[in-house]
Amino acid sequence: MNIILLSGGSGKRLWPLSNEIRSKQFIKIFKKENGEYESMVQRVYRQIRTVDTEAVVTIATSRTQVSAIHNQLGEDVGISVEPCRRDTFPAIALATAWLKDIKGVDEDEPVVVCPVDPYVEDSYYEALKELSAQVERNEASLVLMGIEPTYPSEKYGYIIPADKEAVSSVDTFKEKPDAETAKEYISRGALWNGGVFAYRLRYVLEKAHELIDFTDYADLFAKYETLPKISFDYAVVEKEPRIRMLRYGGQWMDLGTWNTLTEIMAEPVIGDAVLNDTCENVNVINELNVPVVCMGLKNMVVSVSAEGVLVSDKEQSGYIKPYVDKIEQQIMFAEKSWGSFHVLDVEEDSLTIKVTLNPGHRMNYHSHLHRDEIWNVISGEGTVVVDGMEQNVKAGDVVTMQAGCRHTVSAVTELKLIEVQLGKEISVHDKQKFELDA
Amino acid sequence: MNIILLSGGSGKRLWPLSNEIRSKQFIKIFKKENGEYESMVQRVYRQIRTVDTEAVVTIATSRTQVSAIHNQLGEDVGISVEPCRRDTFPAIALATAWLKDIKGVDEDEPVVVCPVDPYVEDSYYEALKELSAQVERNEASLVLMGIEPTYPSEKYGYIIPADKEAVSSVDTFKEKPDAETAKEYISRGALWNGGVFAYRLRYVLEKAHELIDFTDYADLFAKYETLPKISFDYAVVEKEPRIRMLRYGGQWMDLGTWNTLTEIMAEPVIGDAVLNDTCENVNVINELNVPVVCMGLKNMVVSVSAEGVLVSDKEQSGYIKPYVDKIEQQIMFAEKSWGSFHVLDVEEDSLTIKVTLNPGHRMNYHSHLHRDEIWNVISGEGTVVVDGMEQNVKAGDVVTMQAGCRHTVSAVTELKLIEVQLGKEISVHDKQKFELDA
Repeated sequence: MNIILLSGGSGKRLWPLSNEIRSKQFIKIFKKENGEYESMVQRVYRQIRTVDTEAVVTIATSRTQVSAIHNQLGEDVGISVEPCRRDTFPAIALATAWLKDIKGVDEDEPVVVCPVDPYVEDSYYEALKELSAQVERNEASLVLMGIEPTYPSEKYGYIIPADKEAVSSVDTFKEKPDAETAKEYISRGALWNGGVFAYRLRYVLEKAHELIDFTDYADLFAKYETLPKISFDYAVVEKEPRIRMLRYGGQWMDLGTWNTLTEIMAEPVIGDAVLNDTCENVNVINELNVPVVCMGLKNMVVSVSAEGVLVSDKEQSGYIKPYVDKIEQQIMFAEKSWGSFHVLDVEEDSLTIKVTLNPGHRMNYHSHLHRDEIWNVISGEGTVVVDGMEQNVKAGDVVTMQAGCRHTVSAVTELKLIEVQLGKEISVHDKQKFELDA
Repeated sequence: MNIILLSGGSGKRLWPLSNEIRSKQFIKIFKKENGEYESMVQRVYRQIRTVDTEAVVTIATSRTQVSAIHNQLGEDVGISVEPCRRDTFPAIALATAWLKDIKGVDEDEPVVVCPVDPYVEDSYYEALKELSAQVERNEASLVLMGIEPTYPSEKYGYIIPADKEAVSSVDTFKEKPDAETAKEYISRGALWNGGVFAYRLRYVLEKAHELIDFTDYADLFAKYETLPKISFDYAVVEKEPRIRMLRYGGQWMDLGTWNTLTEIMAEPVIGDAVLNDTCENVNVINELNVPVVCMGLKNMVVSVSAEGVLVSDKEQSGYIKPYVDKIEQQIMFAEKSWGSFHVLDVEEDSLTIKVTLNPGHRMNYHSHLHRDEIWNVISGEGTVVVDGMEQNVKAGDVVTMQAGCRHTVSAVTELKLIEVQLGKEISVHDKQKFELDA
């Protein structure tokens, strides 16, 4: 199975665990059988592999997520990088062209597109395989997934099928309705549109060429910024007569808010927290290494990270976005392809960061115009290159770098540094990258 | 007026703003007219000075508070250091001996003892002056303050006066009663015992000599650890026939819990916090530099510091102590006589701290057996001495110190350092102090 996972969004609704560079799909909140925690993207990737060990998985996403994806899924996962955010049609067209031109997938092969963030059982991925098989058997140009609705939601689009069979043709699509209309749709047998599409690779490429003037993947990538924002539903699905829908009745949850996310937490607390016995229906997620004490709370979520603290009534938690939009907060934590960083201290003319490099990884070779840096190695072993000079480092070593000097560090074992940045204009944008001669 | 302020307690009931070394009286939570915040001890000290510019103020406290007191009140305040915690009788005896032998106060002078933590109007200190004056006029051996009760509290001792005059003799003392008994006391005209005592210096010294075998202040200090734990009420007050009580009817609050403390907050929020409009009766104190977002909270207090996060129903907040007692948390923040420190990062074999030195101050000259240290100067100017070698430092300078090497730093302007400690056994107890040759 070729599967494209659409990984979008800044996920501010799950602040302070999500931020501009850590979308909600990267929060490690799902407890695995071995007691460790995994993120949405790790869970989905693992579930796909469980159902189809041979699956070719491609993640369609923006540049800002690439480091986090490699950090969580390793280097083998395919990534179709969107140069900027357009809507789902350009994203799916680009990822489809990427599959053909970069991965060499045959135009006859079926492709399944699905969102990266539904919380589902493994049977969902069995259903995706069935969608793929139906495309392969040429039963339709497009095969969609209809989710059996559990209540008359105003949040989803609806598909009204021609009949009540497990697989049926589609009468019509309905945009997000009000609750009353949703009830009526459901009484007519409507299903939620799960945002899943299966098609033959050639089909979407042809649709793309009809709408966009481009030659191949590289050309489409180069033109991406000029493409109009248009959804796949609007550009393709609603115009396609040879369309079918497969019903999925298993668990399916949209974990977009703290209220829904806490529903599926295996235990009420992740991290260091104490709840007294007058607390009821309280979830705490604490990413810091200091304790959270909760007393007398009812129906609440408490979420603590290096970015901030959220204390919210569960119902209210869905309305967080405008408040978070107003916060002008420096990014305090990020996972990168090579490891992670934590901001420890912010002063007017200095910034102190803890950098963790994974074994075998290294930073880009780079320099800064407007700041000096000091590395204090606190654990592990590695190699530092400063202006071409190589030097082995271990805990206790100090490396000082003036503005303009080129530097990198690679980890032999897991390497941790305290990096002190000093200067009048400290900015993540003050970075020049260079090739490192082998 | 000679006034002894009893400054006790670890103040765990106001965790996470108070901790083992920062008692509640040092939390800066009271807004002054100029918009700045002051602590309980700063507020009391300022109020005393307002009422009596000549007052000789002595703070009776443990060694652990000395740095914080100097940090908040300056170097001029008198401190009677208790070598260990005994009860109020030894503490008052020691401070009284200190006044005579160290400060040279005459034995005929009156002394007023009062707790450091009542939240009161300036008129309270006018009342203390009146207590002092009554002792001076020899109207009694001991003069106490009775607080007009506002409800039948179970938390306070009661004084039952002989009559209802503003100043009266005392019939009897009652320990903390249950609410029913408290009601009955109040109906008989009882007042709360405010823990205030005024006496002639000689009087308490004589009582001390009756109960303890000692010669002078130095001898009492040396024997302090061997003294029994006994309260001043039990040892002196309840046995004294020549005793009077002055009524105080002004504002008097015991700010021992979050519930009471938040009542007197001038504004509901201190620090970076956003409350949506469904919040009611919510107080937030945030000492971190990342935001707190509150949604849909009712009757709650949220308190955030480097030590941890408290989220509590206001009523419940009074029951915090046993939960905090269980927390085994490294001290993350402390005010010292020379400035302050923040723990930024804790690893198995390293600890990273931000040190702020006030201008003109310096650390002790010291060494560590089991850890190396690195100082990264991030702002200011100062002088470092390492194994007797002096060196001026400024932002960007790095000083490395091996275990065993003697070191200190003094600040010319406010000096900030990132200190990286490295070793297998990092402990605050691993410190040898030395004299620094001028």
